[in-house]
Amino acid sequence: MGLLQQVLGIELPLIQAPMAGVQGSALAVAVSNAGGLGSLPCAMLGAEALRAELASIRAQTAKPFNVNFFCHHTPVADPAGEAAWRQSLAPYYVEFGIDPSAIPAGPGRLPFDAATADLLAAFKPPVVSFHFGLPSDALLARVRSWGAKVISSATTVEEARWLEAHGADVIVAQGLEAGGHRGMFLTDELSTQVGTFALLPQIVHAVRVPVVAAGGIADAAGVRAALALGAAGVQVGTAYLLCPEATTSAIHRAALTSEAARHTALTNLYTGHPARGIMTRLMREQGPLSAVAPVFPLATSAVAPLRAKAEGMGSGDFSPLWAGQNASGCRAVPAAQLTRELAGG
Amino acid sequence: MGLLQQVLGIELPLIQAPMAGVQGSALAVAVSNAGGLGSLPCAMLGAEALRAELASIRAQTAKPFNVNFFCHHTPVADPAGEAAWRQSLAPYYVEFGIDPSAIPAGPGRLPFDAATADLLAAFKPPVVSFHFGLPSDALLARVRSWGAKVISSATTVEEARWLEAHGADVIVAQGLEAGGHRGMFLTDELSTQVGTFALLPQIVHAVRVPVVAAGGIADAAGVRAALALGAAGVQVGTAYLLCPEATTSAIHRAALTSEAARHTALTNLYTGHPARGIMTRLMREQGPLSAVAPVFPLATSAVAPLRAKAEGMGSGDFSPLWAGQNASGCRAVPAAQLTRELAGG
Repeated sequence: MGLLQQVLGIELPLIQAPMAGVQGSALAVAVSNAGGLGSLPCAMLGAEALRAELASIRAQTAKPFNVNFFCHHTPVADPAGEAAWRQSLAPYYVEFGIDPSAIPAGPGRLPFDAATADLLAAFKPPVVSFHFGLPSDALLARVRSWGAKVISSATTVEEARWLEAHGADVIVAQGLEAGGHRGMFLTDELSTQVGTFALLPQIVHAVRVPVVAAGGIADAAGVRAALALGAAGVQVGTAYLLCPEATTSAIHRAALTSEAARHTALTNLYTGHPARGIMTRLMREQGPLSAVAPVFPLATSAVAPLRAKAEGMGSGDFSPLWAGQNASGCRAVPAAQLTRELAGG
Repeated sequence: MGLLQQVLGIELPLIQAPMAGVQGSALAVAVSNAGGLGSLPCAMLGAEALRAELASIRAQTAKPFNVNFFCHHTPVADPAGEAAWRQSLAPYYVEFGIDPSAIPAGPGRLPFDAATADLLAAFKPPVVSFHFGLPSDALLARVRSWGAKVISSATTVEEARWLEAHGADVIVAQGLEAGGHRGMFLTDELSTQVGTFALLPQIVHAVRVPVVAAGGIADAAGVRAALALGAAGVQVGTAYLLCPEATTSAIHRAALTSEAARHTALTNLYTGHPARGIMTRLMREQGPLSAVAPVFPLATSAVAPLRAKAEGMGSGDFSPLWAGQNASGCRAVPAAQLTRELAGG
């Protein structure tokens, strides 16, 4: 049995990437029961929803599972910046008949905190993963108190060394191919972000903890390649997006199975932090990286009503269609089957 | 024996990437004699120099070798654009005491043409590779007349399909990790450029000719990973830069063995076409991608005297320090040894 399986108590060297907005407990349960590590994205769940999802997982599997949180610093509200951001979106508000003064400025996502740790303690999730670094030492100690293993993502060798020094049990090497939010937390310079072929072996060389490869892995051959490069396992997200257990929207599913999926970009338009998704009208017209988008997660609220209106008309023009650069593994098959095929090739 | 070896008549599934400015026939000879495909970068060679290098290779190896050319469209001179470009560099001219009016506006690099094909015919190189697509059908027929196999690089699935349809015998899938010039020729949109983990399997799936993986491959594990992803072989450049047979400058060698090599970016400042190199002062201060840099290869001449002056003072601040995102395989060992170790792991 490989090192990753030993550390996490799983059978297959495969983590299902937590993907907020497109999956809940059902996907996590299916993957965990198939022998991988299923993941519940918690960043957008309130306390009640989180409790319900955790209860659902506990009721449906005795296998290890992962709960994922963001641990960004909560930004200070910036009314002038918010106004500039909304100004840049003003033509769209006109187009869709939206009154921008009625849009609430909301936080979008909350970082991991003590109340959440207390809630988790009742469920003792065997694995807790973080994006954007790690929470405070005190919070991390609380998570460890019930024996949870801790995972976080590194996008550079420096971040990997930092995570190891701060107590991560497993490090995800997130190559530039990966979909969704870049885990970068020690740098905001996009040119430091490198492909899996370059990042993975350099992180494997730099740290002693097991390293999990993420970014561009879409099938069993990709898993074999990652293991050949020294990974202890892989984290796969995009390939699961068409599974029936995912809650991926019909618009998002259609994009993933079209030629459009070939063209992704890093964009900060949807949340304020660079994240990889399929090119949309919003990204084309504004440029995927906007200098006026507020910092994470403050960009979210101003785009939300545009997304809702457009989706109501069947359009993904304003939707975050998160996807990695390799959507070729997306298939509408049960997650258990996909998990076995990924790991078994 | 693998398909790539059959098509090219080589023993190992490994092509040494042609790297203009940092190597000549010596590196090509060493790699070819070791069983790989050595490559001679010809884009910056005049007829006499090309003839001499070809004679040198023919005198030192009976094994197959590759000659590489660019096949861009020669741009029309744009005096206003050139003036704007030089204006953006004006502070540096002042700093180094350079009279910009004395800098010749030169083409920098010439595309493959009929005279060059005639010159090649006398030497019958077994393999001819191109960057930026392929030359005209007539020129390609001339190259084929002596039995040469033709290679070109694809950075997208569309480019791979185009190259296969236009007669490439082998396609290099150039992942975003790769150093030097992006081979992109059907698009100038950088967000279409994806990592090796994503690009390689999608191109393998899209074409029937052998596909060679390039970008981020630095050691035997990387070679195994590329083969696991469906590559018929690999093309490795950066790892050869420290070999004694390479002509890599001392400044460039020092950068490759320092922490600086961890931070590369695509830049159009040195030639006008996006190419990956280690971050330099010029790239940091101008931004690596400049809107005023003339099209390839016209940006070259205005930077050349800055490079020369700085290098004369021992500085690489204005030098194109081409490198891929994974310089971890760079070792100052003979190219034959490196070739065997890459292929034999």
